Amino acid sequence: MENQKKPYVIGLDLGGTNSVFGIVDQNANVVATTSIKTAGHGDINQYVDDCVEALKPVIEQVGGIEKIHAMGIGAPNGNYYTGSIEFAPNLPWKGKIPLAQMFSERLGIPVRLTNDANAAAMGEMQYGAARGMQNFIMITLGTGVGSGIVVNGQMVLGCDGMAGELGHVIVEHNGRQCGCGRKGCLETYCSATGVARTAREIIEKTDKPTLLRDIPLDQIESKDVAIAAGKGDEVAKEIFEETGRILGEACANFAAFSSPEAFIFFGGLTKAGDLIMDPIKRAYEATVLRIFQGKAKMLVSELDGAAAAVLGASALGWEVK
Amino acid sequence: MENQKKPYVIGLDLGGTNSVFGIVDQNANVVATTSIKTAGHGDINQYVDDCVEALKPVIEQVGGIEKIHAMGIGAPNGNYYTGSIEFAPNLPWKGKIPLAQMFSERLGIPVRLTNDANAAAMGEMQYGAARGMQNFIMITLGTGVGSGIVVNGQMVLGCDGMAGELGHVIVEHNGRQCGCGRKGCLETYCSATGVARTAREIIEKTDKPTLLRDIPLDQIESKDVAIAAGKGDEVAKEIFEETGRILGEACANFAAFSSPEAFIFFGGLTKAGDLIMDPIKRAYEATVLRIFQGKAKMLVSELDGAAAAVLGASALGWEVK
Repeated sequence: MENQKKPYVIGLDLGGTNSVFGIVDQNANVVATTSIKTAGHGDINQYVDDCVEALKPVIEQVGGIEKIHAMGIGAPNGNYYTGSIEFAPNLPWKGKIPLAQMFSERLGIPVRLTNDANAAAMGEMQYGAARGMQNFIMITLGTGVGSGIVVNGQMVLGCDGMAGELGHVIVEHNGRQCGCGRKGCLETYCSATGVARTAREIIEKTDKPTLLRDIPLDQIESKDVAIAAGKGDEVAKEIFEETGRILGEACANFAAFSSPEAFIFFGGLTKAGDLIMDPIKRAYEATVLRIFQGKAKMLVSELDGAAAAVLGASALGWEVK
Repeated sequence: MENQKKPYVIGLDLGGTNSVFGIVDQNANVVATTSIKTAGHGDINQYVDDCVEALKPVIEQVGGIEKIHAMGIGAPNGNYYTGSIEFAPNLPWKGKIPLAQMFSERLGIPVRLTNDANAAAMGEMQYGAARGMQNFIMITLGTGVGSGIVVNGQMVLGCDGMAGELGHVIVEHNGRQCGCGRKGCLETYCSATGVARTAREIIEKTDKPTLLRDIPLDQIESKDVAIAAGKGDEVAKEIFEETGRILGEACANFAAFSSPEAFIFFGGLTKAGDLIMDPIKRAYEATVLRIFQGKAKMLVSELDGAAAAVLGASALGWEVK
C-alpha cells in the first residue's frame, strides 16, 4: 500500500482574469471548487496568500491536506522545468515568478506547473478526446492561439520548457501585427480576436450586406460572427471559412513536423461547430503532403470548457510519483 | 555476460544511386566497407541477393555473422515502424517494400530501418555534434531537404512513422512547384537544386554581372554558386544570402514547435560555410519569437559526409536490445 496515492489533487487554472481551483479525484470528478480574481493582485505574495486562504475550506471539505497528493497549475507562459511563470504579458506580475515553489512551501505538498495549453493537452490525454493517443496536437483558440504537443506519449517542452508556441508560427509574411512584436503570426488570424479583426476588415473594405453591420465596428466579437453565421449570414460564414482555411493550412505544415494522430481544437471558437471545423478539414486535406492525407483526425475537445482547464492542471498533479 | 552485445553492426546507407555498407564497431570505427549500385536494380529480390553477396567477404573479414549484433538501414521514405520503404519517388521499387524483413531473413540478424534524415540525426546524436542533446533538429540539405527531429532524446516518428518532413513545409504561398505536387515547399528553395534554381532565376531576370553567366544556364549547380561566392561574386553571395534567409525564417517557425537546443545542418550546401550559415543565423535571430532568441545553436554536422550516413544507419543497429 505504501505507493498508493492520496485520493485528491488540486488543479489551478490560472487565467488573466480569474484563478479557478478544483479538488479532483482519480476518476476526474471535480468534487469541490473555489476561485479568486487574478486581476488586481499586483503583489504575488498577497496573491498566493489569498489563494491558500480560499483553498482552506475546500481542502477541509475533502478531509484536510493529508488527503491531497499534489497540486497542478496551468498558467500562461508557465515553464514546466522551472515551475515558474516567465514574462507573461497578460498577468499582473513581471519577470519570472517561481509559483510552484511558492505554493509548495505554503501548502506542504508537491506542486507542478506548465503552460495552460500544455495543461489542456494533458487533460485531454487523461480524460478527453486524446485518451490512448501517443501523438497529437492540441490547439487552443481563445483570446490568443495556444498549443500543447504530445509526441511518443510525452509533452514536447523543448530545451527550455517553452516549446509548443504554434500560435506564433508566422503564416503570412508581413501579415497582421501581433502582440509578440512580429507580424503574421497564426494567432492574429485564428484567435477570437483574429476573427473579430477579420470581420472588421471585411466590413470596412467591402459593401457586402451582413448582420454584423448592426454592431458598432469596434465592438464586434467572434461570438457575434458565430451568431450571424448561425443565421445564414454569408459574410459571417465567409469569415469562418477564411479562418478555417488559414488554420487548416497551418496544421498541414504542423503535420510535416510530428505527423499526429489527431489535432484537437479547444476554446470558444469551436462552439461554431462545423462552420469552423469543415473549412479546417477541407483546407488541411487539400494542403497536406500526400503521405499524410486522410490520417489525422480533426477533433473538438471532449472536455467541458469550464472544467477542462482545471482537469488539465490536475492531470499534472497526478504525474507526481 | 549474457547481455553483452556482439562487437559489430552493419550500417546501410541506401541512396538512389549507390548502396553503401559499413561494418561499424562500438567506437564508431568503420572497419570494413562495400557497396553496390542501387540504380538499375529493378527487382528487389535480386537487389537484396546482390547486397548479401557483396556483404559476405566483409562479414568474413570481421569473423563471420556471429560477430554481428544487428543491421541498421537509412533509406528515403523509410518507415521505422514497419521496416518498409514506402513510395520512394527516387528508388527503383514501387509501393511498400519490407526491406528490413527481407535482409533479416537472409542474414539471420535483427534489422532496423528508418528514413535517411532520421538516420543522420541518430548518427549525429551518437557520434557527432548532437552528443548529449535531448532536443535538436537535423536538416539535411541535398538534392532535397530532409529532417530528423529529436524530442526528449527520442526520434519524432509520428503516428505513422513518417514524421519529420520539414523539407515539405510550405514557406511561400503559391511558390515554386515542388516534386511532391504542391507549391512553395522549403526544399524548392533551400536544397542544392533550389539554389541552382535561384541562380537561374536571377541570371534570367536581371543583367547583374556574375561569373555564373560563364556556365550554360541549364548546367548551373549549387557547387558552381559556392565556387563563385568564394571568389567574391556578388550575385553568388546574394543567392546564399537569400537561401539562408528562407532557411533561417523556416527554422524560426520550427523553434515554436519544439524549441530545440540546436539546429544541425548536413549535406553539400554546408560546404559553403559562413556564406550560408551566417545568413541562416541572422534570419533566425531576427525572426524567432523573443522567448527563443539566443537559445538555439546553429551547427554544421561534425560527421564526415561519406561516413555519416553509414554511421547513422549503424546507430540504429545498436538500438536493438
